[in-house]
Amino acid sequence: MREYKQIGRPKPLLDGLEKVTGRTRYAPDLTVPGMLHARFVTSPHAHAQIENIDVSAALAVPGVTAVLTAADLPHIPPTSRNRLLLARDEVIFAGQPVALVLAEDLGAAQDAVDKVWIDYDSLPAVITLDEALADDAPLVWPAGMPGVSGDAGAHGASVGGDKREQKPSNIAAETRFERGNLAEGFAAADVVVERPFTTAMVHQSYLETFAMLVQPDPLGPGATVWTSTQAPFIVREEVADVLGVEETAVRVIPTPVGGAFGAKFLLLELLAAAAAQAVNRPVKLALTRSEDMLTTNPAPPARFHLKLGMKQDGTITALKADVMVDAGCYPSEHDIAAFLLGSLYQIPHLQVCYTEVLTHKISTGAYRAPGAPQAAFVLESMIDEAAHQLNLDPLTVRLQNASQPGEPMAHGKPWATMGMTEVLQTLQNHPAWQNRAEARAKGRGVGIAVGGWPGGIEPTAASCQLHRDGTLHVHVGSVDLTGTTAGFALMAAEAFGVAPDKVRVISGDTATALFAGSTGGSKITYMVGPSVIKAALEARQQVMEIAANELEADVADMEVVDGRVQVKGVPDRAIQLAEIAQKTMSFGGKYAPVVGNGRHANTKSSPSFAAQLAEVSVDEETGEVTVHKLVVVQDVGQVINPLTLEGQIMGGAMQGLGWALYEQMAHDEYGTPLTGSWMDYNVPHFIHAVPEFEAVFVEVPTEHGPFGARGAGEPPIIATAAAVGNAIADATQARLTDLPMTAPRVIAALKG
Amino acid sequence: MREYKQIGRPKPLLDGLEKVTGRTRYAPDLTVPGMLHARFVTSPHAHAQIENIDVSAALAVPGVTAVLTAADLPHIPPTSRNRLLLARDEVIFAGQPVALVLAEDLGAAQDAVDKVWIDYDSLPAVITLDEALADDAPLVWPAGMPGVSGDAGAHGASVGGDKREQKPSNIAAETRFERGNLAEGFAAADVVVERPFTTAMVHQSYLETFAMLVQPDPLGPGATVWTSTQAPFIVREEVADVLGVEETAVRVIPTPVGGAFGAKFLLLELLAAAAAQAVNRPVKLALTRSEDMLTTNPAPPARFHLKLGMKQDGTITALKADVMVDAGCYPSEHDIAAFLLGSLYQIPHLQVCYTEVLTHKISTGAYRAPGAPQAAFVLESMIDEAAHQLNLDPLTVRLQNASQPGEPMAHGKPWATMGMTEVLQTLQNHPAWQNRAEARAKGRGVGIAVGGWPGGIEPTAASCQLHRDGTLHVHVGSVDLTGTTAGFALMAAEAFGVAPDKVRVISGDTATALFAGSTGGSKITYMVGPSVIKAALEARQQVMEIAANELEADVADMEVVDGRVQVKGVPDRAIQLAEIAQKTMSFGGKYAPVVGNGRHANTKSSPSFAAQLAEVSVDEETGEVTVHKLVVVQDVGQVINPLTLEGQIMGGAMQGLGWALYEQMAHDEYGTPLTGSWMDYNVPHFIHAVPEFEAVFVEVPTEHGPFGARGAGEPPIIATAAAVGNAIADATQARLTDLPMTAPRVIAALKG
Repeated sequence: MREYKQIGRPKPLLDGLEKVTGRTRYAPDLTVPGMLHARFVTSPHAHAQIENIDVSAALAVPGVTAVLTAADLPHIPPTSRNRLLLARDEVIFAGQPVALVLAEDLGAAQDAVDKVWIDYDSLPAVITLDEALADDAPLVWPAGMPGVSGDAGAHGASVGGDKREQKPSNIAAETRFERGNLAEGFAAADVVVERPFTTAMVHQSYLETFAMLVQPDPLGPGATVWTSTQAPFIVREEVADVLGVEETAVRVIPTPVGGAFGAKFLLLELLAAAAAQAVNRPVKLALTRSEDMLTTNPAPPARFHLKLGMKQDGTITALKADVMVDAGCYPSEHDIAAFLLGSLYQIPHLQVCYTEVLTHKISTGAYRAPGAPQAAFVLESMIDEAAHQLNLDPLTVRLQNASQPGEPMAHGKPWATMGMTEVLQTLQNHPAWQNRAEARAKGRGVGIAVGGWPGGIEPTAASCQLHRDGTLHVHVGSVDLTGTTAGFALMAAEAFGVAPDKVRVISGDTATALFAGSTGGSKITYMVGPSVIKAALEARQQVMEIAANELEADVADMEVVDGRVQVKGVPDRAIQLAEIAQKTMSFGGKYAPVVGNGRHANTKSSPSFAAQLAEVSVDEETGEVTVHKLVVVQDVGQVINPLTLEGQIMGGAMQGLGWALYEQMAHDEYGTPLTGSWMDYNVPHFIHAVPEFEAVFVEVPTEHGPFGARGAGEPPIIATAAAVGNAIADATQARLTDLPMTAPRVIAALKG
Repeated sequence: MREYKQIGRPKPLLDGLEKVTGRTRYAPDLTVPGMLHARFVTSPHAHAQIENIDVSAALAVPGVTAVLTAADLPHIPPTSRNRLLLARDEVIFAGQPVALVLAEDLGAAQDAVDKVWIDYDSLPAVITLDEALADDAPLVWPAGMPGVSGDAGAHGASVGGDKREQKPSNIAAETRFERGNLAEGFAAADVVVERPFTTAMVHQSYLETFAMLVQPDPLGPGATVWTSTQAPFIVREEVADVLGVEETAVRVIPTPVGGAFGAKFLLLELLAAAAAQAVNRPVKLALTRSEDMLTTNPAPPARFHLKLGMKQDGTITALKADVMVDAGCYPSEHDIAAFLLGSLYQIPHLQVCYTEVLTHKISTGAYRAPGAPQAAFVLESMIDEAAHQLNLDPLTVRLQNASQPGEPMAHGKPWATMGMTEVLQTLQNHPAWQNRAEARAKGRGVGIAVGGWPGGIEPTAASCQLHRDGTLHVHVGSVDLTGTTAGFALMAAEAFGVAPDKVRVISGDTATALFAGSTGGSKITYMVGPSVIKAALEARQQVMEIAANELEADVADMEVVDGRVQVKGVPDRAIQLAEIAQKTMSFGGKYAPVVGNGRHANTKSSPSFAAQLAEVSVDEETGEVTVHKLVVVQDVGQVINPLTLEGQIMGGAMQGLGWALYEQMAHDEYGTPLTGSWMDYNVPHFIHAVPEFEAVFVEVPTEHGPFGARGAGEPPIIATAAAVGNAIADATQARLTDLPMTAPRVIAALKG
């Protein structure tokens, strides 16, 4: 094992102080002169024809500048949700923006919203999967299925599989993975378990709602876009396309993100940009919580049917899984759920069918490891159930069947090095598992589960500059969601040879930064990190060359130590980094500025796994589930920054608890949203929902990651609901099959 | 001679359209929320004790937020003019800022200026050189001479020479260059000419007055500074020092510069930053023309005494030159005038003495080739006079004595390759010189002169990125004053292999850009250009490697042609640059982003020379001089962009006409400025001052410059006044010895 000076040492978030003292300026805090505030007028109908829009009363409100409708915006094919802009002729979900009020102040805009009169002619809607799949179902897209948005796809490797084209229907996509012979597999089993499952529509519940500000370029075509986004370069590309300008005529300045979790790749920026262009004024669109819950892109609800066979020796012989995702009014590419179902364990006889269905509801999108928490919940529940019936140790069963590096995934390609086995082994030895009898003695249940994420890849570049105050600046084009910049500071410090507090990380915008892929798919540390290291090493080589020249020594004899470059082991023959920088950044200076470049691409993704243990008690009278303890054992490849890593893992697992016990966006039979605020929608509450928590790091290094590190963002959310469900079953013998596992559902399960 | 595809082709200014259509936003156009407008209260006295400042009436003006005095600002040693901030206890020049009114609007600020009551106790002042040098002269700095600002030093190579320390006096600096034996030299001469000369205090007369906006960082210590500057990295360093923060806690965003000419390195930014810090509000300081003429840093007036010996064969045998610069209240380092006097010609017996004297007047600073127009005027006048007395051809005499590459400069170091001889030869063959008899037949005079600039050096870096719209972005940290960015576009296009309109040049700020030295000293094209070329070549290599891989060809067989990379000579086997970029900037892309880095330092400066010819007529009744024709033959090393080069040369020569005939900042005997606006100060007027003009490019390439190019900014201003003076002498036989050569002076010279 290599010894590091900086890697693995705790470093607080670089912008932590700003954030906790309330000084960070998020997108909603921004103002520019002449800015207009925007407010939506949304559809109350899930499906209706727009007969007439009367904006005259709204326009009469003092301070209102314009009330835009689709007629005022470019007519672009609504091939993806972000291109839907405002409803044109027809609405296809309740909450769909139909008009946009622009006013000098928010109050005027809000007043005017209530004065926009829209006549609708209601049309039949499909709200449930069954309605959408009925033979005579009205079609969400009668003229043909729109293109897919690609948001979820940006979260992981393409999953491949056999995708089939359909005749016009509400089916957006079908994917199938098959292997062996199911009948043979089930015949070989000693027990076959079979169950339906459902999972809920879940909102990403970022603290900061969607917010953006678009300023048309006063100097020519183009615009500047400030937005709370995970993907500034995607926003740039798409805004340019809608505005009809060259991509680089648009400058996207990503603002600090107050939570995103997959939701904020690109959604409302095109509408805001089109609106700003229409009135040639800066337009700010910052959603209220209700607007956000009505109009954005939560995780889709899904329906599963699983049948799993297991032999008495613990071998899983067969799996048949049907996955049906209710994507809402646009495709949302969640087939990775099917891919994971067919990949995590080595099952000789396999059939996984994925169907994505459209309904007249809000479009859905990516939420941290999209599809994976659902897949883990159903698969891990079934494995536990089969093991239980065979009186097998559930952890041992998982170890027995877990895929190993080199073994095939659902699509037949081999798994890369990964730590599924190692995280299970580590959990197996953890006191919380070893001493589970003690918990059970207290009437509690202990459940475990494991989940994994294939990991995304996208090229990146970064640069490092040495400045005259002796600081090393790392320039990156990636958005920091989870403290990745603190990790970059450690990596640059390690590679260059300075203290981390002498490293500054500059996150640029699309005009000033080198390209980096979007922040999603657990790939920022994994993909940007290597560029940062290369840039720092190149800069280090440059300072050693300058120092060698100044000290009249051989460059091979130089080392960087404590802010200076010295002849190895001879601190007297040294030159300060600040002095070197001065020689490169001053009139008459004889050395070129110290600038290291790092460029990185990788065709290999590195999967990361987390095994979880939940210890719960169930109040059998009220059905209330209390999670007492949560342990997440995650393979991170190499710990870069334990502080941010622990925070990230805990955050993911807490969101997993939301999936498990609390969160569900609901619609009534007409498609009317029933959960339009956090009064109705139940986010885990810090006071009563957070259990005793432990994050355990396992390090199975990947040759492709920086210092061996793997992406860590997605794994911790995946197995939580499954572990809680298994713990409930352990405590009560009742198997919960619907997420969230609310008290009424627990009661129902206990009763039958 | 090499063949270029792009180099040497005319390319308009990249921001020309913005500028001529009035859309460019200069620093005075900027606003930020909560911004205060600043206005000076200036001293009417050249030297006085401040007894009392009463701000109560000013503070009572509605809209006034604060009236700052020195007591409200950090107490820093006033070691340079930019650190003088506001007068503390004493004023040392008329016009010195004593208080700063900050108000919500400009009108309120202006009203309040008139209501600040300051009691002064007048002190004896030294206004003229003689007063300053008198034995009992009051000292401008009784407690010791402040440090030098370094502004002028940033304009050329350090000139060396023998610098002597002084006992307390008003003498700021003395430098002496000596060679041979003067007495011997003059004894060998066939004619010895000797004259005193004076040159005026001249203002840089940029269209855009000084303007800046400082916003304290709401997120912590530090600030953002928008300023019309030539030197953002210098502003950053100094503002950080005054605010007491790390250099990189200050972000300097250079705004488009509406003229600078050496004046805008760093001057009032420290005051604006200190004021913003004092009130913790954004402060905008945008000077009126009168404020600007009262408070900034024009070129110093100077007094010369020259004695020159020449043999009948044209050999210059000896030169004795005394140079005395009236620097105003701070040193301004103009000893390059002495250096040039001793370097341009090979004179065996030489003594040049430089004395810099302080007076109670506005501090002076750099103006395009600081010291050189003055030196050229006096030296070239004397050479002409000696040649005339010996009946020698003045151009031939110059060619005979001109320094050649390798011959010693005043300090003994050898001249680099340079085109002093070539520009004289080219002028010699120019019709305006060949046919001078025709002009003379019309009663006109024809004069020539030559001037040179050693050239500055400062390290730079630049980077190039390829974007998905197929554009190549060149990122530089240099400020564009003269169209250098258009030249960078040509250089990058040439090196990379795309059309220039596919290149965008991004000028970053100190937080986002790679370092580049300040824009001054004729060194942006010379020093940044090589970094741009290296970056473009590195990017080109990267796209060829990607293309070779995609096309399954050898990288050595690839070429970049018309926006695509192809197998040499096989357009069918090609891949578009946009497609390559897409593969490096997309999810799952397998190639690293195309990012080329260029870093450049150079210990060799490359001198550049311009010979000028003026054809004038003199109205012997009114004394009015009309310049009919001006020809500037300049060695540019290699023409990069003839369009901007011609503009730059013409602009310099027009400013040279200002030196020659029009411009003079005057003070009365009490030191009161007499020229506080363009009503009193005579800038050459486009309608009646601009002659028939021709710029002739000579190309003596330097191995150190991009494609052989030399810096071109400073040379064209240098020899104009000398050429005009020689033309007047040619027309009238009268030798003018004082700049500007106004009508009364011409009359006086004609009379005797």
